[in-house]
Amino acid sequence: MYQLFFSPGACSLASHITLREAGLPFELKRLKFAEGQQRSPDYLKVNPKGRVPALVTPEGTITETPAILFYIAQIAPDKKLAPLDNPFELARLQAFNSFIASTVHVAHAHGPRGSRWATEPTSLEDMRRKVPETMRDSFRLIEQDLTGDFVMGDRFTIADPYLFTMSSWLKDDAVEISEFPRVKAHFERMQARDAVREALAAEAAG
Amino acid sequence: MYQLFFSPGACSLASHITLREAGLPFELKRLKFAEGQQRSPDYLKVNPKGRVPALVTPEGTITETPAILFYIAQIAPDKKLAPLDNPFELARLQAFNSFIASTVHVAHAHGPRGSRWATEPTSLEDMRRKVPETMRDSFRLIEQDLTGDFVMGDRFTIADPYLFTMSSWLKDDAVEISEFPRVKAHFERMQARDAVREALAAEAAG
Ligand SMILES: N[C@@H](CCC(=O)N[C@@H](CS)C(=O)NCC(=O)O)C(=O)O
Ligand SMILES: N[C@@H](CCC(=O)N[C@@H](CS)C(=O)NCC(=O)O)C(=O)O
Repeated sequence: MYQLFFSPGACSLASHITLREAGLPFELKRLKFAEGQQRSPDYLKVNPKGRVPALVTPEGTITETPAILFYIAQIAPDKKLAPLDNPFELARLQAFNSFIASTVHVAHAHGPRGSRWATEPTSLEDMRRKVPETMRDSFRLIEQDLTGDFVMGDRFTIADPYLFTMSSWLKDDAVEISEFPRVKAHFERMQARDAVREALAAEAAG
Repeated sequence: MYQLFFSPGACSLASHITLREAGLPFELKRLKFAEGQQRSPDYLKVNPKGRVPALVTPEGTITETPAILFYIAQIAPDKKLAPLDNPFELARLQAFNSFIASTVHVAHAHGPRGSRWATEPTSLEDMRRKVPETMRDSFRLIEQDLTGDFVMGDRFTIADPYLFTMSSWLKDDAVEISEFPRVKAHFERMQARDAVREALAAEAAG
């Protein structure tokens, strides 16, 4: 049995969807960000970084979305959620997920979480104003590479729930998903999957 | 034969050291950031993101440090640069590298590259002032977990050149490495390795 610490609609959604795609048994542990539960002493024992997601496994806790996604792909190899036997294809997949974590997610975070990197209200305002531009720059690159039904081409992988999660933030970032037709089609393709519908429903139910 | 696009002392140093640790044949391709070569039309064909590192392989180009490092570990399995057969240990390693890419590197980048995320000179100044604090927060977490000679314990892995590269930036970030005694010992242990000395010499000569 696994436990996933999450907050509704946060980046933890990617790990949540992937657990369902893998068919693994897991328990959802919700953190209420509005109450600062991610910084509670109890949760800091789970993840000293005070962030979601954290996946508690029988062997210990894993943090960081790209690591959790790849772990799930490895322990459910029959689901073929990553090209585990092809180092180059796997590197392309990991490069995509790493770009999401280090560039796209970070671009978005300058809206709601600018105080991580600056202090003055004017700076936070300035950062917020730039988010649509940095998200557009990121999604322009993603759109260009999205030539098949899924990030890696014709096969669903752990990159798809991660892209889906980022796409779901575009509206809050004042970017129209229809500016990126292939991303939009990918988003809708994802919305139709059982694992995605179930994950969204479970997160909404709280 | 591989080609590594790099800039001296940039995050590409981690991939450069790792290529040497793996004993792979490679050619260094230096980009002059001062001349904006990372945004030249020719380089954008290699990496449309306009960043280093980029590793050109016989199968195609790989970007993003965590992906390049893991690729090298996979194609040189005899060097045991990652726990390839242990999904949980591999997840811990990938979590470390993902934290570096998405949090530590990003914290540092708010010094020299704040204009990625804001526009006004006062905001960039504000970001620069906060870098020592965010780097200290990151290194406090790293210090806490660094209980062996290497990031993963007693065995050298692809996480070590990456940590070494971040540690080498601390001085520019106005953080004394001696505030973190284990990180400092790790840094010195790394400096003594042939691959590290050769990589630093090659980048300085370049
Ligand atoms: N690099 C981490 C980032 C995790 C992260 O920033 N999570 C956000 C939610 S999307 C969070 O927990 N924020 C709470 C806070 O900043 O207090 C990952 O990819 O998992
Ligand atoms: N997420 C990328 C980041 C790459 C990156 O930001 N590289 C910097 C050097 S450390 C760069 O190329 N900067 C040039 C620029 O911003 O113009 C990775 O981990 O490889």
